[in-house]
Amino acid sequence: MSDSLVFNAVGREVPTVINGEPAIPFPGLDVHRPSGRTAGRIIRSSADYPRDGNKVVRDIRTALERCGLRDGMTISSHHHFRNGDLVVNLVFQAAAEMGVKDLRWFPSAAFPCHRPILELVEQGVVRLIEGSLNGPIGDFCSRGKMPGMGVLRSHGGRYQAVQDGEVHIDIAVVAAPTADAFGNANGVNGPSACGLLGFGLADSEYADRVIVVTDNLVPFPCYPWQIMGQLVDHVVVVDKIGEPEKIVSGTTRITRSPDRLRIAELAARFMKEAGIMKDGFSFQAGAGGTALAFAIYLAQLMKEAGVKARFVRGGSTQYLVNMLEEGLTDFILDGQTFDLEGVRSMRDDPRHIATSPFTSYNWHGKGHFATFVDAVVLGATEVDVNFNANVVTHTDGRMLHGIGGWQNCLGSPCVILPIPSFRNRIPVIIDEVTTICGPGEAIDVVVTERGIAINPLRQDLIDAVKGSDLPLKTIDELKWEIERICGGPPAKPRLGERVVAAIKWVDGTVIDCVRQVL
Amino acid sequence: MSDSLVFNAVGREVPTVINGEPAIPFPGLDVHRPSGRTAGRIIRSSADYPRDGNKVVRDIRTALERCGLRDGMTISSHHHFRNGDLVVNLVFQAAAEMGVKDLRWFPSAAFPCHRPILELVEQGVVRLIEGSLNGPIGDFCSRGKMPGMGVLRSHGGRYQAVQDGEVHIDIAVVAAPTADAFGNANGVNGPSACGLLGFGLADSEYADRVIVVTDNLVPFPCYPWQIMGQLVDHVVVVDKIGEPEKIVSGTTRITRSPDRLRIAELAARFMKEAGIMKDGFSFQAGAGGTALAFAIYLAQLMKEAGVKARFVRGGSTQYLVNMLEEGLTDFILDGQTFDLEGVRSMRDDPRHIATSPFTSYNWHGKGHFATFVDAVVLGATEVDVNFNANVVTHTDGRMLHGIGGWQNCLGSPCVILPIPSFRNRIPVIIDEVTTICGPGEAIDVVVTERGIAINPLRQDLIDAVKGSDLPLKTIDELKWEIERICGGPPAKPRLGERVVAAIKWVDGTVIDCVRQVL
Repeated sequence: MSDSLVFNAVGREVPTVINGEPAIPFPGLDVHRPSGRTAGRIIRSSADYPRDGNKVVRDIRTALERCGLRDGMTISSHHHFRNGDLVVNLVFQAAAEMGVKDLRWFPSAAFPCHRPILELVEQGVVRLIEGSLNGPIGDFCSRGKMPGMGVLRSHGGRYQAVQDGEVHIDIAVVAAPTADAFGNANGVNGPSACGLLGFGLADSEYADRVIVVTDNLVPFPCYPWQIMGQLVDHVVVVDKIGEPEKIVSGTTRITRSPDRLRIAELAARFMKEAGIMKDGFSFQAGAGGTALAFAIYLAQLMKEAGVKARFVRGGSTQYLVNMLEEGLTDFILDGQTFDLEGVRSMRDDPRHIATSPFTSYNWHGKGHFATFVDAVVLGATEVDVNFNANVVTHTDGRMLHGIGGWQNCLGSPCVILPIPSFRNRIPVIIDEVTTICGPGEAIDVVVTERGIAINPLRQDLIDAVKGSDLPLKTIDELKWEIERICGGPPAKPRLGERVVAAIKWVDGTVIDCVRQVL
Repeated sequence: MSDSLVFNAVGREVPTVINGEPAIPFPGLDVHRPSGRTAGRIIRSSADYPRDGNKVVRDIRTALERCGLRDGMTISSHHHFRNGDLVVNLVFQAAAEMGVKDLRWFPSAAFPCHRPILELVEQGVVRLIEGSLNGPIGDFCSRGKMPGMGVLRSHGGRYQAVQDGEVHIDIAVVAAPTADAFGNANGVNGPSACGLLGFGLADSEYADRVIVVTDNLVPFPCYPWQIMGQLVDHVVVVDKIGEPEKIVSGTTRITRSPDRLRIAELAARFMKEAGIMKDGFSFQAGAGGTALAFAIYLAQLMKEAGVKARFVRGGSTQYLVNMLEEGLTDFILDGQTFDLEGVRSMRDDPRHIATSPFTSYNWHGKGHFATFVDAVVLGATEVDVNFNANVVTHTDGRMLHGIGGWQNCLGSPCVILPIPSFRNRIPVIIDEVTTICGPGEAIDVVVTERGIAINPLRQDLIDAVKGSDLPLKTIDELKWEIERICGGPPAKPRLGERVVAAIKWVDGTVIDCVRQVL
């Protein structure tokens, strides 16, 4: 736990020590510069690996034993199956049976299906879950039940932290829909195909030991080798690694709400009116119901105007796949397939390209894709009058969501947040967000069913849509209007002093923290 | 220069210091174990790279200046164009114009087309060429004209040396047949398409600065991104980077010599009789005239027997491409395209897979492909009665060839050397090779037009072909027969004391060295 808190450049009190390690308060956008060199891998010798390339061992426990699992180690995993993952619980159950304690679990994201791990936290097998904490896992952390301090990072931030040596992974476990005995693995083939394995890239590159767990072992070579066997220590075959149908659940149905359809339409029209939607442009939209509707509206506008995109960034869905197949874009650059049409397309269509947090989001590279996606359309739980936005906590203070690629996407020259004015009669545009995940200067446009607010810093965008019939308002006007409807601003959450989680910015500095919910 | 020489495990006197750095004498196969961690990259920030992804600078000199080129630095390059490269000379010419001195050039291989660099060595611009030295460049080194000591590594050894931090590259220059402004690059598209860019992988991953030079700039995304833009600092566009037709020259014509055709046929028949040629097997053959003929004979035997390979490793040529297209193999795993049919196939056929020295050959990984290729067919300049083989020097002592993937391929469970008994009436099988590139215990079968010698260590192979009508002889029988024909063993070369080049084994230890030719 950290005793010392300081105010950072966005006025938030943040810890300077996180789980015993020093942390740098966010000093403002593009201010921090890293130093030193990336982490190195332990240099291995092929003399110590099977000459015939067969790395299959009997079961997960055997693999963990061969990897030398012991107290205090860090085990990583990935959320390619989202709430359909079946491997992580097996891994920690095996660890518990081995009698180890005090582990750090370093998932790219934890989902409700991982609830059994919470018992292991209470039993002392796991000390800390460091990663995106969705639903009940986040709630558990919010209530102060996790001994260690949570650390939330973006997808790019996770890559950066591993690459830079901030997080050292002892054992990475990669659940792979297809693999060969040498450890080459991918997500596009096999009965559990889920798309790509990009979230496991950093782990495969930097972990001391790497275990591939598959339910579809094929003869060498397994290709594409999204995970490279040269980085893998052991391969384990199990009956079933995940339920790919659950990657769909919840997030990939188009909204039926008239308000949200209107928001989606306004966001698409904004892109047209602002001149962003033009030949060769690019955009990224997530997989929430509003974002899906946005993509459909935008595709319609593109068809009407005869405009073709150079690339569209996914999370891919059937709607982006349709755009590719109808010739509305040259490429999909995909970071995570969100439905089975996305999986099919990625497998069969060479224009549907698998990317990774390294290619797309790693701030500590020589550039990355996210800064030159012309426009991104993202969600938020709250936005404030300074355009600061929140994606991890609700207005009651509970941390229920991860950051995903959200922070990384803020690098785009046009960041659009299409959000409802209120949810359950609680205003979404407020005076001050509960948690700052993205600083206001990086957020350009807020689109609600009641109108569009452009960040005053973006005079160019304001000029670009001047004369259009878009319902433009200031963010303050929007806020007042919403408060009138909802009967005032939302109540402040009841929070304790204890910091239960830190929120990292894309460069590894601390932009905010989450306090215990009382 | 090194003063101290010691005898290593194969009885060769080798330097313990190379260009001022300590070196480890070869301690025997699989004995050496590395320690420590791989090199790290300097951690960069996207804040210091163009937000719009456009890294194009005016010319090579500008790029070198931006990279901070100064005296004593190491510049790397690659031989994807073999003797048709047009970029390296431009780079060093620009360096000379900038007035820098004492550079180390670290090519994956140097060819006759790089003769102009020799003048720069004489002028002091370049101090050392560290890489495979073919033809006149090797001759120059052999005659003691290079101030530094040459270091010859296999393709895998080069990756290992860079990865392990033994060789630090300041500036890597990657000549790329297609690239985008962000630096993504590949070799399969564009007017100068040469296949893949695998030899540049290590350099892109570990060099401090990376320059991509292309003659075919395409809109982002250039895909496949064999070189990743996230690792690239600058992009330079020139008129022409290479002459892809020259990747063909010399090495990729089938032999017409009746003796060599017989050798090729015997090698193919050996694989059949030994039971290696069976469904799902794999093999690698190089691009020399005999190896090409071998592939054609083997394909014929496979067709007759109804046998299909799982994969064939290239250097790819039209003959391997034919095998893929005729269904004789599921995949080509290709490290270097040797003709334009190979380029076409790699571009268009997803079963023709680009590999790299990392996937195929890096001894310091968690295994690599070369140890489970069922059989490899390789050349040699000399073999001795202990099955030690030489690929870099001729019997007159001159170093005229690089090692290529040759040493790495010795990891295969069946290494076959199909070689002529003599060349220009000089015996090829002799008492003691001029330079040991591969220790005899790693070499299994020598096939000549006068018979086949199996290494006595491989009783299993001797048993496997027992009863066949293959012309089996001992290596000594072969040697006597050849000496009878040639009028005795070859004359010993006239060599000085000075060590002009060290030969590394795949694990970075020193297996032999080359003395100055007097």
